[in-house]
Amino acid sequence: MGFEYLTNVPLEQAKREYLALVKKNGFAAKTERIPVQQAFGRRTATAIYACISAPHYAASAMDGIAVNAKDSFGATETTPITLTEAQFTVVDTGDPIPEGRDAVIMVEELVSNEDDTITIHDAATPWQHIRQIGEDICAGEMILASGMDVTPVAIGAMIAGGVLEIEVIKKPVIGIIPTGDEIVPPCANPKPGDILEFNSSIFSAMVTGWGAEAVTYPIVPDQFDRIKTMVERACNECDLVILNAGSSAGREDFSAGVIREIGQVLYHGIAMKPGKPAILGCRGATPILGVPGYPVSGIIVIEELLRPLVEHCLWIGSNEVPCADAVLTRSIVSGFKYQEFVRVRMGYVNDQLMASPLSRGSGVVSSFMKADGILEIAQGTEGYEAGSSVRVRLLTTEEKLRNTLVVIGSHDPLLDELAEMIHRDNSNIYMSSAHVGSMGGIMAIRRGEAHVAGCHLLDTGTGEYNLSFIKKYFPKGGVRLIRCVGRQQGLMLQKGNPLKIQCFADLTKEGVRYVNRQKGSGTRILMDYLCGKNGIDTRGLYGYDREELTHTSVAAQIASTSADAGMGIYSAAQNYGLDFLPVCVEEYDLIIPDTAFETAMVQQMLATLKSEAFQQKIRSMGGYTIDCPGEMIEVQ
Amino acid sequence: MGFEYLTNVPLEQAKREYLALVKKNGFAAKTERIPVQQAFGRRTATAIYACISAPHYAASAMDGIAVNAKDSFGATETTPITLTEAQFTVVDTGDPIPEGRDAVIMVEELVSNEDDTITIHDAATPWQHIRQIGEDICAGEMILASGMDVTPVAIGAMIAGGVLEIEVIKKPVIGIIPTGDEIVPPCANPKPGDILEFNSSIFSAMVTGWGAEAVTYPIVPDQFDRIKTMVERACNECDLVILNAGSSAGREDFSAGVIREIGQVLYHGIAMKPGKPAILGCRGATPILGVPGYPVSGIIVIEELLRPLVEHCLWIGSNEVPCADAVLTRSIVSGFKYQEFVRVRMGYVNDQLMASPLSRGSGVVSSFMKADGILEIAQGTEGYEAGSSVRVRLLTTEEKLRNTLVVIGSHDPLLDELAEMIHRDNSNIYMSSAHVGSMGGIMAIRRGEAHVAGCHLLDTGTGEYNLSFIKKYFPKGGVRLIRCVGRQQGLMLQKGNPLKIQCFADLTKEGVRYVNRQKGSGTRILMDYLCGKNGIDTRGLYGYDREELTHTSVAAQIASTSADAGMGIYSAAQNYGLDFLPVCVEEYDLIIPDTAFETAMVQQMLATLKSEAFQQKIRSMGGYTIDCPGEMIEVQ
Repeated sequence: MGFEYLTNVPLEQAKREYLALVKKNGFAAKTERIPVQQAFGRRTATAIYACISAPHYAASAMDGIAVNAKDSFGATETTPITLTEAQFTVVDTGDPIPEGRDAVIMVEELVSNEDDTITIHDAATPWQHIRQIGEDICAGEMILASGMDVTPVAIGAMIAGGVLEIEVIKKPVIGIIPTGDEIVPPCANPKPGDILEFNSSIFSAMVTGWGAEAVTYPIVPDQFDRIKTMVERACNECDLVILNAGSSAGREDFSAGVIREIGQVLYHGIAMKPGKPAILGCRGATPILGVPGYPVSGIIVIEELLRPLVEHCLWIGSNEVPCADAVLTRSIVSGFKYQEFVRVRMGYVNDQLMASPLSRGSGVVSSFMKADGILEIAQGTEGYEAGSSVRVRLLTTEEKLRNTLVVIGSHDPLLDELAEMIHRDNSNIYMSSAHVGSMGGIMAIRRGEAHVAGCHLLDTGTGEYNLSFIKKYFPKGGVRLIRCVGRQQGLMLQKGNPLKIQCFADLTKEGVRYVNRQKGSGTRILMDYLCGKNGIDTRGLYGYDREELTHTSVAAQIASTSADAGMGIYSAAQNYGLDFLPVCVEEYDLIIPDTAFETAMVQQMLATLKSEAFQQKIRSMGGYTIDCPGEMIEVQ
Repeated sequence: MGFEYLTNVPLEQAKREYLALVKKNGFAAKTERIPVQQAFGRRTATAIYACISAPHYAASAMDGIAVNAKDSFGATETTPITLTEAQFTVVDTGDPIPEGRDAVIMVEELVSNEDDTITIHDAATPWQHIRQIGEDICAGEMILASGMDVTPVAIGAMIAGGVLEIEVIKKPVIGIIPTGDEIVPPCANPKPGDILEFNSSIFSAMVTGWGAEAVTYPIVPDQFDRIKTMVERACNECDLVILNAGSSAGREDFSAGVIREIGQVLYHGIAMKPGKPAILGCRGATPILGVPGYPVSGIIVIEELLRPLVEHCLWIGSNEVPCADAVLTRSIVSGFKYQEFVRVRMGYVNDQLMASPLSRGSGVVSSFMKADGILEIAQGTEGYEAGSSVRVRLLTTEEKLRNTLVVIGSHDPLLDELAEMIHRDNSNIYMSSAHVGSMGGIMAIRRGEAHVAGCHLLDTGTGEYNLSFIKKYFPKGGVRLIRCVGRQQGLMLQKGNPLKIQCFADLTKEGVRYVNRQKGSGTRILMDYLCGKNGIDTRGLYGYDREELTHTSVAAQIASTSADAGMGIYSAAQNYGLDFLPVCVEEYDLIIPDTAFETAMVQQMLATLKSEAFQQKIRSMGGYTIDCPGEMIEVQ
């Protein structure tokens, strides 16, 4: 196909022109007729009028007799009137009023006589105690306008009005075509080089959530003709088509060429990041959206460019997107030439909503899972300073954010288990954790970003953990230190220890590949300290600059045989079946600002820490010592 | 069964004890294993851990060559290194890194030689340009805790982590049993006395909306043994059972007896209104809720008493219910002995949220459709004064309320058509209308409850419409009068005019039954005036006290032959195929406060009024004259 230059059209312009183009081509909502009982959550396509009145007959509202009110006129306590059998009909509540009767007298007001006549002592008003026809709904009355959501009560009202079928907006069918030679269907044991196809599952769930229907086609290899055939088929079967991957301008990227051959391409390349290589195309009235292969890019492109089309199909007006103002915890620099979508993790700390930018790598689907919001940086601006107030589009509810315990600091797998247990103990409370190392945690607490920081910092002068750092970084106090666990640090080694590493000095042996933790992490500080103590020049350790962010990822590298040794905790080594050379037991504690201490979230965390269930879980993970978790440590 | 005394237990106590009882009996969430692709919107029952890392192999992040970084050490611009074929492997982006290689050098930095060797001018850092195993997700890492909602992105992360099936909370199955001899399945032509069974459709949609599954059983007649058999079957097949109607203490009300025979009844009778006769029962771990037959009572009972059980089954914590503070427009008096749930219509007028109580009749399903919120009046309190600030549970979104045009005043079917057209013209704008007569509309505007009031008030002194009323009720100005339509008022008569009514005097003839509009409505004022002018004593008109709230309902009574004549507009008569004796053409105008005039909603209404489509619709309805609708009428 050769290399094509991409356009760099502003996103808003692209959205506007794309919708206008497909509308001009006839892209519009379709309708269908369905039984009213199946209409919950659907949207009416026409106004709905009652076919019958409700009640559809005049009904007695009481147990008693139905009479002609005129026959009762003049009855009083002193001049009672006696009605003959021909003048009344006995009725129960809900019974139809017989022809010729126009009032009901309650059974309590009747005197029955032996000759089957009835005496009354009060005149009846015409239509008393009768539920009149149409009291609830009149035939011909509009029950629902068009373009309205069908609620449970509306279903009841329609049935009461004799409406059994209604015309609703049809759910648009969205065809999703995954392409790529290296793409394979989801499986548990992929071969090296295989890329698991999960984009279609993400996209499918997204569009289902918007009220559309998704159809996923089989994976198509990178061949122009086969892609073309599949896109044509999808255009025939669906209302919109997503062509996934192959949207950039590389060698095997056929998408734009295919769309151009069977229809037209409005733009290839949008001034947005991630998502730049998106293709806005169509075949007649059927939009075909070329979506980049990286999941995060794909999600943003679908949200920004497909959703407006789906909403047009569903007669959904431009809803206000839930947004909130938050304080940005770190500066973000953004390119001038594009509109950027930055995922942020959010939390209410000290009654202030904070937003912390997450990894901007577009291949990292797990970072999107951790995102609570999206910060849009407009094209033509350079980003935001730390501490500035920014408007963030929420991916979760404010209520959930208010109930989320924000934990930032040193990584330990027990934090995930703690989160699990806290939420089990109190389903209204959530916990989110970010792994930035012990020093990062201290800084997050200082900046007011977190409720809790996990910390295991060795004071190499005193051999004490954490205390001297608290004194140094919080000289005026304001935080508490809570005991969590003692944990076994050591060297994680390949199973069976093939390189026979018995001590620190062995790490310098020829052929030993080390994998390290990032600077600022407690484990890195420990490793630097131990190397110094053992007289090892770390510049001589192969791979010492290879940094991983968690114990688990260090273990994963060793397990994959791409490294031979790394410092980390026993539970991570055990999880990957690695050999483990114990080095020391360190104190892993939690720093909590005074302002957060009394919150229900922190109190729940402390209760969970102290629970037998938590301690049992920790013991089962191995490599931890437990000594009164949840207790406060005296700082001064 | 005899008459049983009902209990009057406070609602909160009943809820608490009911949940405790069924939990003690073993009522709890169930779980099921499903493919991860089907898990969108479900809730995890266990924590989910990654089975494989993502990426699951070390992959090249660039096109170039994979090398052993050591072979490149020392290469600089001045001392290049040449790699032999054995020392490198050509890789594309995404390719696995071959055994023994640990760095990638980008194609742009390579100099290819004729002997198939490659020269480099810079040393490679170990692991440069390689996406490491687990960069996104590490095997063994927790992807989702238990009790979490599965999002689209989470599905992607699970598939990337090699997770193909997960354990989720099973949707509880709710069996709905409609009972009653008079109940019939929905149909378009019910016989007098038949009651259409629509409660099960309402309940079914409600519980579906909460995440449960509904099963509706066939209608069971009022026979103890047949009800018992069906309840036992439902208990065997479902997790919760709703037994509809037969919950009060009347003659044919078997519900409590049936539940008592097969299980137990905790309470029969709750201190709530509507909903008092609810029955809280169970058979072992299966709750059986006896629900009153009136739809509004049923909805409240299900919301208050069933929903907490369903949420327990779904591991849903006690969510904050969306509420808002509003100003009450009219006083509400409530009984001391029960907690009352009053439906209110709401609107933002002049930036103030207003709540107007709706009909409290529990049989009127259409009033629930009009409700935007529920006002709870606690047991032991007597209600609220007009003008007080009340906390209302919202049934709609604040956004929708902010975009809803509130029209209160005289009824005309064209208002429904106007609402339909405004929403079609601008799908973000809604209109709600209440029919309280022309004088009621003026009062609503004065109280700041409405944006618009429909009005057709004849000044019998001047023969002019509306103007003198505006001057009288808004002496300081502050409102505008907008021309809407001229409309034909007249006497609606039975088809073919069997009683030969030719003039007003004929209404006094023996056997003529009149049906009237409510006091304060413009039509009633007109009728009173015309009777006076024609020398008719209205006390002599049979049925003059029989009041209906709309033209349509007056027409419905005449069409049902329960009345012979009534004053109303031509379009209502035409809709029911009635004869019509024209009396006069009146001016139906709209009053709009200055404060609302510039809002987008009012401006949209004016634009729609002026549109050709609206005028065409009005002409097709018949009985209207059109003269510049949407234009302002000079008041002074």
